[in-house]
Amino acid sequence: MARTTIHDIAKELHTTAATVSRALNDHPSISAATKETVKATALRLNYQHNRAASSLRSGKTYVIGVLIPSAEVSFFGSVIHGIEKIAKSQGYNVLLFQTNEQYEDEVQGVQTLLQSNVDGIIASISKETIQYDHFLEVKRRDIPLILFDRSLEGLDVPSVMINDYKGAFMATEHLIEQGFTRIAHISGPQHISIFHERLKGYVDALAAHGMKIDGDLIMYGKVTIDSGRTCAEQLLQLPSPPDAIFAAEDFTALGALQAIKESKWPKPGQIGLVGFANEAFSAYITPSLTTIDQQTALMGEEAAKIFMDLSQKGKKPDLPPQKIVLEPLLVQRESSIKRKPKKKSIP
Amino acid sequence: MARTTIHDIAKELHTTAATVSRALNDHPSISAATKETVKATALRLNYQHNRAASSLRSGKTYVIGVLIPSAEVSFFGSVIHGIEKIAKSQGYNVLLFQTNEQYEDEVQGVQTLLQSNVDGIIASISKETIQYDHFLEVKRRDIPLILFDRSLEGLDVPSVMINDYKGAFMATEHLIEQGFTRIAHISGPQHISIFHERLKGYVDALAAHGMKIDGDLIMYGKVTIDSGRTCAEQLLQLPSPPDAIFAAEDFTALGALQAIKESKWPKPGQIGLVGFANEAFSAYITPSLTTIDQQTALMGEEAAKIFMDLSQKGKKPDLPPQKIVLEPLLVQRESSIKRKPKKKSIP
Repeated sequence: MARTTIHDIAKELHTTAATVSRALNDHPSISAATKETVKATALRLNYQHNRAASSLRSGKTYVIGVLIPSAEVSFFGSVIHGIEKIAKSQGYNVLLFQTNEQYEDEVQGVQTLLQSNVDGIIASISKETIQYDHFLEVKRRDIPLILFDRSLEGLDVPSVMINDYKGAFMATEHLIEQGFTRIAHISGPQHISIFHERLKGYVDALAAHGMKIDGDLIMYGKVTIDSGRTCAEQLLQLPSPPDAIFAAEDFTALGALQAIKESKWPKPGQIGLVGFANEAFSAYITPSLTTIDQQTALMGEEAAKIFMDLSQKGKKPDLPPQKIVLEPLLVQRESSIKRKPKKKSIP
Repeated sequence: MARTTIHDIAKELHTTAATVSRALNDHPSISAATKETVKATALRLNYQHNRAASSLRSGKTYVIGVLIPSAEVSFFGSVIHGIEKIAKSQGYNVLLFQTNEQYEDEVQGVQTLLQSNVDGIIASISKETIQYDHFLEVKRRDIPLILFDRSLEGLDVPSVMINDYKGAFMATEHLIEQGFTRIAHISGPQHISIFHERLKGYVDALAAHGMKIDGDLIMYGKVTIDSGRTCAEQLLQLPSPPDAIFAAEDFTALGALQAIKESKWPKPGQIGLVGFANEAFSAYITPSLTTIDQQTALMGEEAAKIFMDLSQKGKKPDLPPQKIVLEPLLVQRESSIKRKPKKKSIP
């Protein structure tokens, strides 16, 4: 039996092949009712949409490739939802590649997405990446490339970030306003700009409030639970330990909280703790974690919108690439509340 | 300037084009030292590996497509790590598509992966899916299709599941052994076999211990935090409320824990709670959650191994598809400990 074509569907419904094609492709000019009728008929006639042929005609695959460091971090999951929201509204699908924070995997990921003929790539750089030849190949092919959250110096492409400096300043200032006076910071690798920016925000907030910067209170962790725990253990053992910790991200804060819980003092509630990222778990741990929200869904939406703009313009113009900087939000929960010491009851 | 070919690299290194090709493709017969030399030379000569051409020759893309319901559930992230481990060892890359638990997205996902010419698809079915025409297209093309965790009745393909019945039986029996006597169960949609199996495991464990099955203590939730909270609130308001809850998965358990914390009684520690899935957060909440581990990494590895087998055999033989059933593991934490009531001190 011959393969069903859109012409067969059009004949059956006394309409044109163009209308059938648009309905099958969810074109906005076609009513929902018509789309439904066309799709039901296509199903009944066992029509197989030949996307490959359709792609050859348009030169598009309607697929956006997204490179993420880890599928196990809810931050990235949330950004993906934002990307998907915009992508779907424009008839695009999203393929994901996980780099596991490894440079080699990221190179493989770029190659795999290019090989899949994606129409564009939205990426967050892995922790390990310090050079970007693999991304230059994307630029060379005139495929839109947009970075989010983490970018690379020198790779001149559009990006959507949050104001990490300001987020860290807000987090530190919040602890100061709560009455904490010896505030430590557990940072991350300093070649990654977001961690360096957060360190600067911490330092400047202390300075702005006339507080001393104490090198003993600044640790450089590895952005993991274990590393957060180890750093906090060292801080608590200082001759003059901190009364609050600002961790550069939530997994580090979670490790620090474990160290606090396992130590003889201070108990949670006696030491202030703020994280960064508003990871899914941060609302559910005890005490719930005060943290900085990065407007993740919005970040994904903005990145996808830049892609749509570049995609519709075709060849990119010689304008400087768009840099969007989102505002961080303080999410105040239990971990940063300063409790007044209980008065001893007189016997 | 002419494009660098593998012949140019071979000439430069006084070796054969076949050796260069194997080295660039990480073939196991080539030593690490040779691979390094070849890759360095390729980089120096600005060689661009033409994967598309390579694919045309072999008929393979060396890409496995993975369909997951959600990138925000750590269960799936962990399975993906298992898949990637095996895939990478065999020179394959993994592309992910998130279905958001929607049937329509799943259909789009299958089409997108087929359009990307993946060599095989490993999938977990979305909660909404009740028919499987889109997967029949994969079978029709003789592309290996392997399901994990959630399968569909009637779709006769290889699968890797865990023994959900046994996991639920173990969870319930654990609560019985702790001394709880009115054990409630918050289940999920019953058209999804894993939730039906877990309900059966719960019922049979009670029966095996001579305990009554009380319909009031069985709730049907929606597998979300909110739904878990609502179901638990209703259970706690029963004239004769439960003294323990077995939730069909960890997000439901998390919602139930919130309801328990917000209620006047019982306090956490006075009511037993067990989840299912060993989600990342379950170790970090307070009390930490007793749950059933599903051997996620192993599940991914086994699914990928089936793909490799089918892929190497080429056309699949007329044998019944392989069904692997993994053993669940009880992870005992704080939430299921039955505390003895404190004796009142005599004044």
